[in-house]
Amino acid sequence: MLTALAGGVGAARFLAGLVRAVPPAEVVAIVNTADDEEFHGLHVSPDLDSVTYTLAGASNSEQGWGLAGESFRVLDALARYGVETWFRLGDLDLATHLFRTQRLRAGAPLSTVTAEIARAWGVGTRLLPMTDDRVATRISVRRDGGVHECKMQEWFVRDRAEPEVVSVRFEGASTARPAPGVLDALEAAEAIVVCPSNPVISIGPLLAVPGIRDALVARRDRVVAISPIVGGAPVKGPADRLMAPLGIEVSCAGVARAYADFCSALVIDEIDSGAAEAVEAAGVRAVVADTMMRSPEVAAALARRTLAAVA
Amino acid sequence: MLTALAGGVGAARFLAGLVRAVPPAEVVAIVNTADDEEFHGLHVSPDLDSVTYTLAGASNSEQGWGLAGESFRVLDALARYGVETWFRLGDLDLATHLFRTQRLRAGAPLSTVTAEIARAWGVGTRLLPMTDDRVATRISVRRDGGVHECKMQEWFVRDRAEPEVVSVRFEGASTARPAPGVLDALEAAEAIVVCPSNPVISIGPLLAVPGIRDALVARRDRVVAISPIVGGAPVKGPADRLMAPLGIEVSCAGVARAYADFCSALVIDEIDSGAAEAVEAAGVRAVVADTMMRSPEVAAALARRTLAAVA
Repeated sequence: MLTALAGGVGAARFLAGLVRAVPPAEVVAIVNTADDEEFHGLHVSPDLDSVTYTLAGASNSEQGWGLAGESFRVLDALARYGVETWFRLGDLDLATHLFRTQRLRAGAPLSTVTAEIARAWGVGTRLLPMTDDRVATRISVRRDGGVHECKMQEWFVRDRAEPEVVSVRFEGASTARPAPGVLDALEAAEAIVVCPSNPVISIGPLLAVPGIRDALVARRDRVVAISPIVGGAPVKGPADRLMAPLGIEVSCAGVARAYADFCSALVIDEIDSGAAEAVEAAGVRAVVADTMMRSPEVAAALARRTLAAVA
Repeated sequence: MLTALAGGVGAARFLAGLVRAVPPAEVVAIVNTADDEEFHGLHVSPDLDSVTYTLAGASNSEQGWGLAGESFRVLDALARYGVETWFRLGDLDLATHLFRTQRLRAGAPLSTVTAEIARAWGVGTRLLPMTDDRVATRISVRRDGGVHECKMQEWFVRDRAEPEVVSVRFEGASTARPAPGVLDALEAAEAIVVCPSNPVISIGPLLAVPGIRDALVARRDRVVAISPIVGGAPVKGPADRLMAPLGIEVSCAGVARAYADFCSALVIDEIDSGAAEAVEAAGVRAVVADTMMRSPEVAAALARRTLAAVA
């Protein structure tokens, strides 16, 4: 059994490769839920949905998020009521949020609902939210001469990750419990893969849920990560805007140092082969591979190389 | 000021005529909410929405319900999750339900949200839910040799009004309070119009909210109704399936007898002119008019004739 720690789009692409390299049923993905947010009264789980839709082969590959063939009829109609519609929820996607919200309100835990949604999409891989409890990423930014805290999606989507980040916290994390199956999946895994996700706001919340970091530390020799930083910049997303203010160098060596206590190997891109020494200086074995997942085939090759690193 | 008691589609058509006959701002419509139901976790108010959309000129006139140019992307996507989708909520309509539900959850009373929705649609007529409290029509039907109670929409939409009705009750009505403005609108009105709506499940719930029937009785000489029964059958909808089991004759005379204690005049269709005597035998003045609202112009003429009856 293989266990992956996953954020959103980058992780989803890697997982789509992983389930080509090994049987999907042998993979468990533990997914960040600190980006979950309520929009229009609906519980939206962006990372869980990115992974589900991508593994179902239903994601919009050109756009990089959401579902293929998506439309925005409801959201455009909502604008009539003067509500904010900067978070672009599509019609097909809304069906998922309606279902999830109704099940949660009926008392089902997020892990149960996540399994139901994955099954409805024919996803054979087990997807686990990191926790059934509410954890929410809050970002403090500098604005108008002061420091203001906002929600992750407000900073990332509404404000296009432009406001300068001062600090990040994961509200609710200290009292959150890992979802059922999370610690077991970490203990029993032959290999644990930290997907190429934002180290601060995708992997960070997973590590902040009590018990998960300790479980990783205990299995350090089996933990391998893929650097989301290639050539000194994130492949996608705002990781650089978050890492630098938190004192993490925006480089694969910076990732290695941030992960060193629980991770024994880091897959870095060919373009960064010169940084292998700096990675190893952090006590993390460097493995060079093509990490630019242009296709599921490239992602599958990357997955094989990643697993071999801790075999 | 004119006050109307309204159900759904028939009332909406009449009101669209009324606001051509008199300034829209002089009309207050008190609308049945006992058909309100939760679908997919959203609060749906079918009658309020029918009236709003029709007065906004946005209703689907061919289909007879819902919005023009409607689509069903979300609902069709919801089917993936195995939920029941027999209540056909359109995408544009869903935006209204999302907005309403979120406002209600935030603590706004239905009357406030109704005003917000009407304003967003540019409706100049004041729309009031009959109550801000929860009243729900429950229908007992004969099935499989027994009597089973179901929700109004289950009987009407899911079961196409086919199961034989044994009885009807309005859950919550006895403790419901008229929404703010309802009793004032009845007391202050120059005329009170009971729209051509289902007497049992559209007008019935309004009468069941404590205070409303008494207010009508007190103004009986100013209350005029339009018969929803023409030629011994409802113009639209299942009124006959409900009236007969409850001992109300399916005729304009039957309507007259049901309304006689609070209503001094009944507008009946030309086709029913022979029934004028039976109507008047119930103590209700009969006014003959063309009640088949083929167009807003016909509805406007009907509205003028109706108002003249109690001028």
